[in-house]
Amino acid sequence: MLTVSYLGPEKTNTHFAARKRFGVKARYLHAPTVEDVFRMVEREKADFGVVPIENSLEGAVTRTLDRFMDFKNSPARICGEIDLPIQHYLIMDPRASKEKIRVVYSHPQALAQCSRWLEKQLAVDVAHVETSSTTEAVQWLFREDRLIDPRERAAIGRRELANRGHLKAIPIPVTQDNRTRFLVLSLKAPRRGRKNKTSLMFVLKDKPGALHDALVPFKKYRINLTKIESRPTKRKAWEYIFFIDFEGHQSEPRVQRALRALEPCTSTVKVLGSYPIQGGR
Amino acid sequence: MLTVSYLGPEKTNTHFAARKRFGVKARYLHAPTVEDVFRMVEREKADFGVVPIENSLEGAVTRTLDRFMDFKNSPARICGEIDLPIQHYLIMDPRASKEKIRVVYSHPQALAQCSRWLEKQLAVDVAHVETSSTTEAVQWLFREDRLIDPRERAAIGRRELANRGHLKAIPIPVTQDNRTRFLVLSLKAPRRGRKNKTSLMFVLKDKPGALHDALVPFKKYRINLTKIESRPTKRKAWEYIFFIDFEGHQSEPRVQRALRALEPCTSTVKVLGSYPIQGGR
Repeated sequence: MLTVSYLGPEKTNTHFAARKRFGVKARYLHAPTVEDVFRMVEREKADFGVVPIENSLEGAVTRTLDRFMDFKNSPARICGEIDLPIQHYLIMDPRASKEKIRVVYSHPQALAQCSRWLEKQLAVDVAHVETSSTTEAVQWLFREDRLIDPRERAAIGRRELANRGHLKAIPIPVTQDNRTRFLVLSLKAPRRGRKNKTSLMFVLKDKPGALHDALVPFKKYRINLTKIESRPTKRKAWEYIFFIDFEGHQSEPRVQRALRALEPCTSTVKVLGSYPIQGGR
Repeated sequence: MLTVSYLGPEKTNTHFAARKRFGVKARYLHAPTVEDVFRMVEREKADFGVVPIENSLEGAVTRTLDRFMDFKNSPARICGEIDLPIQHYLIMDPRASKEKIRVVYSHPQALAQCSRWLEKQLAVDVAHVETSSTTEAVQWLFREDRLIDPRERAAIGRRELANRGHLKAIPIPVTQDNRTRFLVLSLKAPRRGRKNKTSLMFVLKDKPGALHDALVPFKKYRINLTKIESRPTKRKAWEYIFFIDFEGHQSEPRVQRALRALEPCTSTVKVLGSYPIQGGR
């Protein structure tokens, strides 16, 4: 039986993403942080790990990018991705009404994704309280707190979170396409698919035109970049590490040539994994 | 007298950045959100606006980038930058001790910057509560809450925030260089400096090699890129808008040639401003 660790607790979006990929037969282990998911894979406590990497409205999940950077020698590799549509609900006591809400609890990404709707629909002075997951946000609705009546609290999360406590769930409309992309981590490389993608991170040498020069090999070997993200290296102010995704597999000769040509431009470079593009197996 | 709006309330890092640039003679107006700072500049309620754009540990301030994107026709331009070293303090009741802290209040950027130290120094189950500013975080220390004793609360912010209430302030050591960069906004273009920088945003046309092609003109005209950042466009999942900084002024012929050459690769392009590099006036 496969063991899959995911950013928990149960019923988070990451849990649903993991179930979308691995189905009902896998054994699921929830981990409290992104860091713990990586560690469970690295220490072979889980065959696979699932972590969020990017949301279509709020952008990169910086904790995940930073974990790749902080542990450059980690044996964990990206072996797949999962794309999940996100629908948020405002969850509250059945006797509550949205006009009377004084505190909204949720994960910072969910609060950010819904911020415009919350501004329009709730009172001006409503407080936002950041929780480590949408599941934890719902638990706050039940906590004892004499100053805030349970009917003045709301959480944001998936509709499934409202069932257990028979709570009210109002869908939060978003005009834009809200999707989250998750990465699947493993110690083993996946089988090469029909269409593949490779993720790479590198630090450029400090010289004019370095970023352009680093992209030349991809253009030369007709390799399509699908994504570029930069993060501070944290070693030196205003120095960056780049995360790049491109179409192709690291075992292809043209990709190997491009990677060799990239090396002189960089001070650090690591392939994070080659994996089948979703739906392209 | 100059009027300067900044992301408030008083004594935030943005306030100190604004005072570093505009001194004691300016009139300062605090604004509750990044959005409000932009609006005060656009409606001529302030001559200048100051907003954070980037931290050397935590990366981009996405609200500021997104405001540029969401209001493409805004007349507000970047007319300068301010680089401020950040030193965080754990601020608490003089009778409190860090071992007994149960809740830490601060701005999400400050919580993220100090997360490793907090994990090591405070209890495992300490709750992090996100506030809209470090100044507001300190106000939470005094709020009435029967469930959390004032001696079990701490805030993270500048040492200056501890003075008013005679609070205790413990410096939070960071091994890395913690600096924040702020942008100065205005309706007027600044005088051209000796060394200048230009900020640009663009959306690429959807075709292979587009990012490489967009960087070719910069290489060709020997223009040094100092920064590239990407954000979701929010119109379509996995479509990005790029924010680029480069050395040079938009009035220089080589920059104008590069911008003209960039146009065919992009569906949207806007110069956000040319301004003197800090210290290079």
